[in-house]
Amino acid sequence: MTRSPVSEKTVTVDLGEKSYPIYIGKNILPEFGVYVKRKVTGPKVLVVTNPTVNNLYGKVVADSLQRSGYEVSIGEVPDGESYKSLDSARLLYDIAFENNLDRSCAIIALGGGVIGDLAGFVAATYMRGIPFIQVPTTLLAQVDSSVGGKVAVNHPKGKNIIGAFYQPKMVFADTGTLSTLAQREVRGGMAEVIKYGIIWDPAFFNYLEESHTLIKEMDTGALIHIVETSCSIKARVVEQDETEQGIRAILNYGHTFGHALEALTGYKRYIHGEAVAIGMVTAADAAVKLEMLDSAVRERIEKVINLYELPVKSKKLSVDDVIESMGHDKKVKAGRVRYVLPEEIGQVNIVTDISYDILTEILTERLTGND
Amino acid sequence: MTRSPVSEKTVTVDLGEKSYPIYIGKNILPEFGVYVKRKVTGPKVLVVTNPTVNNLYGKVVADSLQRSGYEVSIGEVPDGESYKSLDSARLLYDIAFENNLDRSCAIIALGGGVIGDLAGFVAATYMRGIPFIQVPTTLLAQVDSSVGGKVAVNHPKGKNIIGAFYQPKMVFADTGTLSTLAQREVRGGMAEVIKYGIIWDPAFFNYLEESHTLIKEMDTGALIHIVETSCSIKARVVEQDETEQGIRAILNYGHTFGHALEALTGYKRYIHGEAVAIGMVTAADAAVKLEMLDSAVRERIEKVINLYELPVKSKKLSVDDVIESMGHDKKVKAGRVRYVLPEEIGQVNIVTDISYDILTEILTERLTGND
Repeated sequence: MTRSPVSEKTVTVDLGEKSYPIYIGKNILPEFGVYVKRKVTGPKVLVVTNPTVNNLYGKVVADSLQRSGYEVSIGEVPDGESYKSLDSARLLYDIAFENNLDRSCAIIALGGGVIGDLAGFVAATYMRGIPFIQVPTTLLAQVDSSVGGKVAVNHPKGKNIIGAFYQPKMVFADTGTLSTLAQREVRGGMAEVIKYGIIWDPAFFNYLEESHTLIKEMDTGALIHIVETSCSIKARVVEQDETEQGIRAILNYGHTFGHALEALTGYKRYIHGEAVAIGMVTAADAAVKLEMLDSAVRERIEKVINLYELPVKSKKLSVDDVIESMGHDKKVKAGRVRYVLPEEIGQVNIVTDISYDILTEILTERLTGND
Repeated sequence: MTRSPVSEKTVTVDLGEKSYPIYIGKNILPEFGVYVKRKVTGPKVLVVTNPTVNNLYGKVVADSLQRSGYEVSIGEVPDGESYKSLDSARLLYDIAFENNLDRSCAIIALGGGVIGDLAGFVAATYMRGIPFIQVPTTLLAQVDSSVGGKVAVNHPKGKNIIGAFYQPKMVFADTGTLSTLAQREVRGGMAEVIKYGIIWDPAFFNYLEESHTLIKEMDTGALIHIVETSCSIKARVVEQDETEQGIRAILNYGHTFGHALEALTGYKRYIHGEAVAIGMVTAADAAVKLEMLDSAVRERIEKVINLYELPVKSKKLSVDDVIESMGHDKKVKAGRVRYVLPEEIGQVNIVTDISYDILTEILTERLTGND
């Protein structure tokens, strides 16, 4: 009784020899091993995951891999951003080495963005790079972090400071896993989904405005549609600029402010999507102030973010601390800060430097919340 | 009184967008900054070096960079292979971060293979990759490790287990630095030079046989010739196979045995080139045993290695330990060991698996030295 493998949708990331498919469907995890077989010739795989995800999906994934003939080892890393570290990477190198993984074997990330980034960094650097597969189980990971090859661990003083551009051989997104996700995590993922509408696709933005009830009810078709559309937009951007020399920077819309907020609150107060949500509104504020954006469009952006119950104001923080923190963002070129600002729905532009006075004015407004 | 920059020879590594020049000349370090200016647009550079090299060449390099307008910071790592570690990388990430290096800035490796591999790994992974420049100051680094983009740190249980393929923007080899090198280090470098003759170039092998006096006297022309020829051969191999999917493996001639010897003697008894020298003769033994190689050619290989005062036998070690250690070599595919064996001077081939009996026989012979 072998079922033939099915995925509802396939998006391809076209990067020449490094091209790879993104399979998207509901409850497709039991078929995972069959898909891996197309990509991994070696006998062994190391599944990197965390206790929560392992508990929920470790067995179905390992069983599927074993049915396809793989020898499976599991590398469990505790939950949380603080474990996206060089120390965790070191632990995984040890496990890979002890299990004799060689360059024909694969590392599989089963989990959210933390697991994907960490496992990807280990895959990129173990034996100078071995095959890597993403199995994202959060909305954030399915629509954003699992696609595009950015992998990294954190430096004590900054997020994603140690990393690489390293493309996976495949992404396998089972939207069924989103049903076990905390509501807050789903909302966080929606911040990145909204981002794609703002930077690239007015029709998709309209859909998000109109279909919010369906999406919040986790309708199967709606979820597959937003994952597929998000991955397609990200794929188009990454195809043009794999290593972030130019256009890829637009994916950082909301992230320059967002990263600063996360850093200044010790990565504890906000989940990533919440910080990005505040960052997207702040960037829209700046765009209005610079007369790049109509204030009615800014309102529309803030309204959609509200619709998905994401924050639009940060707690009170020192404006100067935020400005200084932005100076350490990776997008900084030669000491200057580059901001991704919206011009209309579906269109952003990159602005180098914003005056201290304008930054102070908009940040003072956005950093006064009580949440 | 600005001198116009000169290098005696330039070898280009042709890798499309990742192509880069290797400049080779005597006493060219004072002109270094002028060359860097062609490649690095940012205002800052981090020079990674060790105390010995820093003492000898740190000032001339830093002065040259400052004359070209760069803000220079120095990251000093203690001498020795044991510092090619994740801990040293962590220290350098901290220095890069504290000095606000961004993606437009460069990391410069000033030293031998340890410094080049470590600094390259940090450049490959800091902010997902920033410009990297090699200034090799040992013969081994000038003819081998600085060219081709292999960067790495060691794992407690294996050499170069954590790394990447990351090409430098330029290699700047001043053969003048070889005059301050210990004789043993020069001899070690010659092992890799001899390797190029055996795997690729019979005429070069002849030259090494005939010109050994000139080379051992460190004649300027002879040194530039062997560095240039070695870099050219390595460039041609790397151009065909940047990430070691196929032909690049021939560069590992002598290294499968060599790495095992280094590992089993705690990286203390042999410098790399010495272990490779023993490894090359051992591989030739195996080739004769498998009837791939004429025993007269094997003699010629051993004779050249003797000529440059490199070892051809290892101290007594357990044959089984060596065989087990080779099983952890990165070249292992799906549990099988691949050996690079000579067929004639200028030609090697890759053999998958050698029987336990043959390995035991040849290793028993080679592991009986007293040195």
